Order: sequence, then structure tokens, then C-alpha cells
Amino acid sequence: MDAATTWADLDTGNCSVARTAAIVGDAWTLVLLRDLFNGVRRFDELAAHLGVARTVLTRRLTTLVDAGLVRREPYREPGRRERHEYRLSAAGRDLLPVVLALMAWGDAHLADDEGPSVVVEHRGCGAPVHVALRCADGHEVDPHRGTVARPGPGARTQVRASS
Amino acid sequence: MDAATTWADLDTGNCSVARTAAIVGDAWTLVLLRDLFNGVRRFDELAAHLGVARTVLTRRLTTLVDAGLVRREPYREPGRRERHEYRLSAAGRDLLPVVLALMAWGDAHLADDEGPSVVVEHRGCGAPVHVALRCADGHEVDPHRGTVARPGPGARTQVRASS
Repeated sequence: MDAATTWADLDTGNCSVARTAAIVGDAWTLVLLRDLFNGVRRFDELAAHLGVARTVLTRRLTTLVDAGLVRREPYREPGRRERHEYRLSAAGRDLLPVVLALMAWGDAHLADDEGPSVVVEHRGCGAPVHVALRCADGHEVDPHRGTVARPGPGARTQVRASS
Repeated sequence: MDAATTWADLDTGNCSVARTAAIVGDAWTLVLLRDLFNGVRRFDELAAHLGVARTVLTRRLTTLVDAGLVRREPYREPGRRERHEYRLSAAGRDLLPVVLALMAWGDAHLADDEGPSVVVEHRGCGAPVHVALRCADGHEVDPHRGTVARPGPGARTQVRASS
């Protein structure tokens, strides 16, 4: 874009934040993803643990299945009818940084005195895991002043209604 | 927790993911944060750029101001009445990893052929910035199999309705 173009002039129709938010940008969906990451898989367990209405849970799961983030797999307990489990796909598991970034913010800004209810550890060494911003040259990036957003290869200028 | 306790037994009332999602877990709020990070500050500019109804924008901004993520600051252009700008507070800017994690997922899974509309660069060196999971011992953590969630100091067991 030329020097006079600002972020506000760019079309957001192909914005990756907006596209992702359209799928997972919902409080119930985000805590549902949290539970799926933590191995809760069965509809009844999810409904009980989340305290969510079954209709809402069905809708959120359907959205995630349709978007390819969650796989629906049949299982059958002895003497009972077939039911389904829900497991994150590889694309769904790619959302872990989103969930951990939400968790880190809550830990920093909203935690009770006794501390966070969950800590996430590195499976290899047991040290706590955090979300970091890094650049391709290997620098740690200050989230407050260290970044600049620039138009990418898919940037389009917004067409404004004009006279 | 003892060995028989699972994630599904834990009370989520003090979960940091849920608390953060209750404030920002909304698609309009997430793209609003994106625009605030990119320097769009005035109500009319935000409304036009987001294509959001003014009532919805007012509600989302009020939530963010009340939660301390956004400051509302007066300004006045010559010959016009006083208006307000909206700027991220330090706590609001701490949400950058959330927005960049959403963006990274969309870039990886939902981008058009021409590529992403925005790239985020390290202000220091110009290299692209990504969201990484790191542990306190300095290891890069595989988001797919590298993490284990454990009860933290504030973990509480869920009280279930029982007979």
C-alpha cells in the first residue's frame, strides 16, 4: 500500500483473525475447546462439566465438526446403544496457542488469590509452558511495542461507498 | 488431585480460559481488538471498518472499557463537539498473543491462494512474528503432544449433584 493507506483503508473480508473468530469466537466454543484439549470427549461429560444447555453444546460441536476441527467417532458401551465421542483433529489441536493465550491472560489479570486452577507443563521436562512471541530471526518479541502489522500478499483496499 | 481425579472432576468456576472468554469470547470483540491493535481509535472509523451495527459496537466497547482493557479518551476537532477515542490499556495490549494466535490459525487453515492480508513483523529486525509455546527451561514446546495440563494451586473439585 502507498504511504497514505492505513489499516482502516484495508478490506477485512479476507482477514484471518475474522475468519478464525467466525468459527471459534464464542465463549462456549472456547471452553468447549479447552475441555476437548483436556480429554473430555463424551457428550454427557461435556454437558455436565461445562454446565451448558444440550442444544447449545450440540450446535457448537456441529460447527466444529463441520469446520474440520473436531472428529465425531462412534463408541458403544456393553448393552447400550451407539454413542459418539468428540476428538480434536490436527487442525483443532493447532488451536492450542489460542486457548493457552486466553488462559495466560486470565492467569495474569483475573486469577484468585490462591492462584490459577490449571498449570500447563512441558511433557518433556515438567517446566511450565507459556505463550511467547518470536520472530523468524529468533528474537523474543515484546508484545507491547515490538510488532508492526503490514499489508500481506492478500491485502485489498476497502471499497468505500462514495459520491 | 489424587490419581483417580480427572479434568472432568474439576470445578471450572475459577478457570482462566472461561474468565477471559467471558470478556473477549465474541467474534465482534475479537475483530474490534484487532482494529484497536492496528490503531483504529475513533468510533465512526471502527464502525465503518468493521461493518458492525453502532449499537453492537457500543456494547462491545463498553464491555472492554468496564473490564479495563480499553481507555476512553476525549478529543475535539476544530468547530465540532467533543468525541471519544478508544485505546488499549496495558492489560488490553496483553491480549496481543490471543489475536496473533487466532491470526496464525487462520493464515494456516483458511487463507486464500494469494496469501494472508496482513503480516506482523518484529519492529526491531523486520522478520515475521509467530506465536510459539516455550517452557520455563527454554525449550520450544510441540503444541500437539508436548503439553500436560495439571491442577494448579487454585484447583477445586467439582461438587456434583448426587443421590
